Amino acid sequence: MINIEALYKVSYGLSIVCSGDKNRGNGFISNSVFQVTAEPPKFAVCCNKNNYTAEFIQRHNAFSISVPDQNVSSDIIGSFGSKSGKYFDKIAGKTIRYGDTGVPVILNRCIAFFEVKLLQTVDAGTHLIFIGELINAEVLDNNKEPLTYLYYRQVRKGVAPKNAPTYIDKSKLEKPKTNLISKRYKCPG
Amino acid sequence: MINIEALYKVSYGLSIVCSGDKNRGNGFISNSVFQVTAEPPKFAVCCNKNNYTAEFIQRHNAFSISVPDQNVSSDIIGSFGSKSGKYFDKIAGKTIRYGDTGVPVILNRCIAFFEVKLLQTVDAGTHLIFIGELINAEVLDNNKEPLTYLYYRQVRKGVAPKNAPTYIDKSKLEKPKTNLISKRYKCPG
Repeated sequence: MINIEALYKVSYGLSIVCSGDKNRGNGFISNSVFQVTAEPPKFAVCCNKNNYTAEFIQRHNAFSISVPDQNVSSDIIGSFGSKSGKYFDKIAGKTIRYGDTGVPVILNRCIAFFEVKLLQTVDAGTHLIFIGELINAEVLDNNKEPLTYLYYRQVRKGVAPKNAPTYIDKSKLEKPKTNLISKRYKCPG
Repeated sequence: MINIEALYKVSYGLSIVCSGDKNRGNGFISNSVFQVTAEPPKFAVCCNKNNYTAEFIQRHNAFSISVPDQNVSSDIIGSFGSKSGKYFDKIAGKTIRYGDTGVPVILNRCIAFFEVKLLQTVDAGTHLIFIGELINAEVLDNNKEPLTYLYYRQVRKGVAPKNAPTYIDKSKLEKPKTNLISKRYKCPG
């Protein structure tokens, strides 16, 4: 039995994951960035196959991860959110640094960033898991808290976009009892 | 350049990951449990190859994930922490439910749990990433907050054990300047 509400009990941070180069870049909001190994330091990110950024990561074999301050503007989050960057440039107008691999790193209201060189791509079904070696890590602001998925949901009333691994179809939650259970839980991701 | 302090800016939840059966089980504290896909719901966990639990997961092709309340006792966390379960039974004396796959699920002060059937094992170097399909998900307590790594560190003064993907060698932080940088960052994980 799968109670969809249980999925909300898993804690995640929110990051902006970017790839590309000076000509064209793209990024998306991820809640599945995590460190995989300590020696050497490797990071992974889970990315929907339909995310435009997935193409950039595979072409450039690198990506950046920016950790926004929890009070980052909704404009920044929104611009990397549910709309695809296929038809407009999400990077345009942002404060950017280009990493050693050439990928853009978003700096707007971010407290830290990482640059990762792609080593492995794992096919997990609808999503790819990109695993790579950490080549740069920097603190931009030591006095602010990182944006978490919990804070984003509870305080800022945000929801996961359809391409997120944790996307929850709200209609599944509109059941009369709180302890809703679905044996055939299926998310139109 | 890698500033190790940046690694602290990534947010994680803490979970107890278990596997085994009624005869013998084992578990460990993980900060790298995450949902990989929504359709079907798949979860992944990153596990050090030296973790005794890794053997159980590979033998039983399943694992459970329990999300502790942030005020879970230090005894519970400690018993799944840095000591290996090779020479003592970590599960003994705990409140346990056995899942559909037969794996033990820790219930002590936990607010939700998940049961996952192993589908893929990814070799990421020192760690394995176990990816599986979610077959059970339950809320045990809807009124308490999940334990996060940030809360564990800041409020409960806990540290990541050596086998954790996010293990940080404290000696690397004892540098005169806060903006410590190491080009050859190496963690004795």
